[in-house]
Amino acid sequence: MNYPLNQIPERTEKPRQKGLTMVMDKGLSLRQVEDFLELGSGYTDIVKLGWATSFVTPNLKDKLALYKSAGIPVYFGGTLFEAFVVRGQFDEYRRVLDQYGMEYAEVSDGSLEMEQDDKCGYIQTLAKQVTVLSEVGSKDEAKIIPPYKWIKLMKAELEAGAWKVIGEAREGGNVGLFRASGEVRQGLVEEILTEIPEEKIIWEAPQKSQQVWFVKLVGANVNVGNIAPHEVISLETIRLGLRGDTFSHFLDKK
Amino acid sequence: MNYPLNQIPERTEKPRQKGLTMVMDKGLSLRQVEDFLELGSGYTDIVKLGWATSFVTPNLKDKLALYKSAGIPVYFGGTLFEAFVVRGQFDEYRRVLDQYGMEYAEVSDGSLEMEQDDKCGYIQTLAKQVTVLSEVGSKDEAKIIPPYKWIKLMKAELEAGAWKVIGEAREGGNVGLFRASGEVRQGLVEEILTEIPEEKIIWEAPQKSQQVWFVKLVGANVNVGNIAPHEVISLETIRLGLRGDTFSHFLDKK
Amino acid sequence: MNYPLNQIPERTEKPRQKGLTMVMDKGLSLRQVEDFLELGSGYTDIVKLGWATSFVTPNLKDKLALYKSAGIPVYFGGTLFEAFVVRGQFDEYRRVLDQYGMEYAEVSDGSLEMEQDDKCGYIQTLAKQVTVLSEVGSKDEAKIIPPYKWIKLMKAELEAGAWKVIGEAREGGNVGLFRASGEVRQGLVEEILTEIPEEKIIWEAPQKSQQVWFVKLVGANVNVGNIAPHEVISLETIRLGLRGDTFSHFLDKK
Repeated sequence: MNYPLNQIPERTEKPRQKGLTMVMDKGLSLRQVEDFLELGSGYTDIVKLGWATSFVTPNLKDKLALYKSAGIPVYFGGTLFEAFVVRGQFDEYRRVLDQYGMEYAEVSDGSLEMEQDDKCGYIQTLAKQVTVLSEVGSKDEAKIIPPYKWIKLMKAELEAGAWKVIGEAREGGNVGLFRASGEVRQGLVEEILTEIPEEKIIWEAPQKSQQVWFVKLVGANVNVGNIAPHEVISLETIRLGLRGDTFSHFLDKK
Repeated sequence: MNYPLNQIPERTEKPRQKGLTMVMDKGLSLRQVEDFLELGSGYTDIVKLGWATSFVTPNLKDKLALYKSAGIPVYFGGTLFEAFVVRGQFDEYRRVLDQYGMEYAEVSDGSLEMEQDDKCGYIQTLAKQVTVLSEVGSKDEAKIIPPYKWIKLMKAELEAGAWKVIGEAREGGNVGLFRASGEVRQGLVEEILTEIPEEKIIWEAPQKSQQVWFVKLVGANVNVGNIAPHEVISLETIRLGLRGDTFSHFLDKK
Repeated sequence: MNYPLNQIPERTEKPRQKGLTMVMDKGLSLRQVEDFLELGSGYTDIVKLGWATSFVTPNLKDKLALYKSAGIPVYFGGTLFEAFVVRGQFDEYRRVLDQYGMEYAEVSDGSLEMEQDDKCGYIQTLAKQVTVLSEVGSKDEAKIIPPYKWIKLMKAELEAGAWKVIGEAREGGNVGLFRASGEVRQGLVEEILTEIPEEKIIWEAPQKSQQVWFVKLVGANVNVGNIAPHEVISLETIRLGLRGDTFSHFLDKK
């Protein structure tokens, strides 16, 4: 850090199991990836190529190589997995993962209907090949999953072999964990945390107010995701109590 | 495309008359233009230098050369045309177009009052010099033009020599085709499409929900405009049914 | 300017005392700073490294050198000052300013409680070391300061040695001068302007509608701040009556 400031909360160091920042790349150029890495590589634990953007990205192989050289794991958004599954092409998806040398993959059911057993089956199969992140929550704002079911799904998916479970929010932060207005479904999050260890969950929290809320609830080392590349520095200041929103949160109370 | 996915809607290829993406550059640096072209040149058919930003852009000539070398036509936003016209400097505008080697120009009346005959006169005159895009709709959210009049204006402007007509939305997507909330004026769009061929219209649709709405109504190869440079990859996934919002739209229904 | 347009309001030239644009850098890479300077250096008078982002920015010294070589002064956001003060480390803050060769500093109390006399004391002390900008207004949207008190604070802080006073709005433009919706507190601004010379105030106005409002009230050469780097070109067109929102504002009325 650049200055000798006291009372800064301690941050975990890479490779982190807690305090993860998952960044969403939804179509950066190679130079933009380099720019992002200059600032964010120390603060970023894993990068998602948003939904199926990797299908149409002209620079995919070079981009993957760039993140690899920076030591940052990358995975394809769950929508790509779903696009293969819905077309009956799951085996081809597995070959695609190998072909691009992917070491992580996401299993999700945000855009289609999938039985829990089937989802866990996909997790088990993929977990033999890669590290699996599994996402809970629908992209459809009309589909409200009650808290007990979030917990049941998360437990089952971790048992099936998922490394972490992700709470859905989309790029916009307006479904799943959040109301259409972006407001956190607080009771849902608090109930989940009574049953699932905080280090096993990555909360998608693209909006600043959502990041602030999670840092205040869980602490500086909460796992958050769907962070825009240009917001990683801001997030780090929120974690450290160095932005107005969390300014007093970590100070000793006299 | 990077993977062997089935059931992907067919996209038209450049040079396109249908399925056009018009991107708005509101002040990119040369390097940012290069970054955009790396990702978006295959998906972008034409670039608008937003409103009169070209007046204050320090790198204008180099920028025009950069787009030209990528084979992407560029035009100055209609507000620049209007700024010359309102000052009685239309002839100077025509000289400016020549001076910068412009091959396209926009005629619009979003910020001033103009008789329909006068507007068609400008289109006729400019059409001898460049390819003309003509825009219908006011930038003033209080000015609601009824559907029959949109159709009358569009027909007259195409007859006067416009290559395409553009439906106004501004950078924000909150006037013209849309309500202040960004919601589409659905009846308006549907009525226009009963009278004007879809390939003759470019719908300004800067917001994701607006792009989704048009893709669902018209199809993968709808013409849309005012797309931010960093949203071109996202738009392409929406066109192809590879983002949550259009995920099921192009799949075979069993 | 690139074209011979008549009736363009006259802009002050650098170094400006009026018509200032203060840009917020909240974590640009070095190359992104270069890109910004290519477009914006002529239009930008001073850059703020937002809140305490400079604490976690890996490239701080190089970034400061880059802005310096472009002749654009830089200062650390007021939240950094407050973070040192709240920890009883004000003397260390002064050493940090020297260590990084800073020539400007901000004094603010947006995230903590500070007596007016104490604030003026900090201004007096720092004014011996650097040029001081002092900010009035809370980051807490629940804290409404009445107009007479804004004026009293601004007067006192200018007398204590502040070069300019800044009206608080945050990055979002939703506190201080503005309601949570972003709407300007018009009566507040108008009352301030009856007592404080316009050239002594920098209005934070990150949203386009806010910039438009201030240009219409004060003129092309209003001082505005918290402008995003990629919005500097847009702001310049708003100042010159070359965007729809101010299109008619500077034209001769017949």
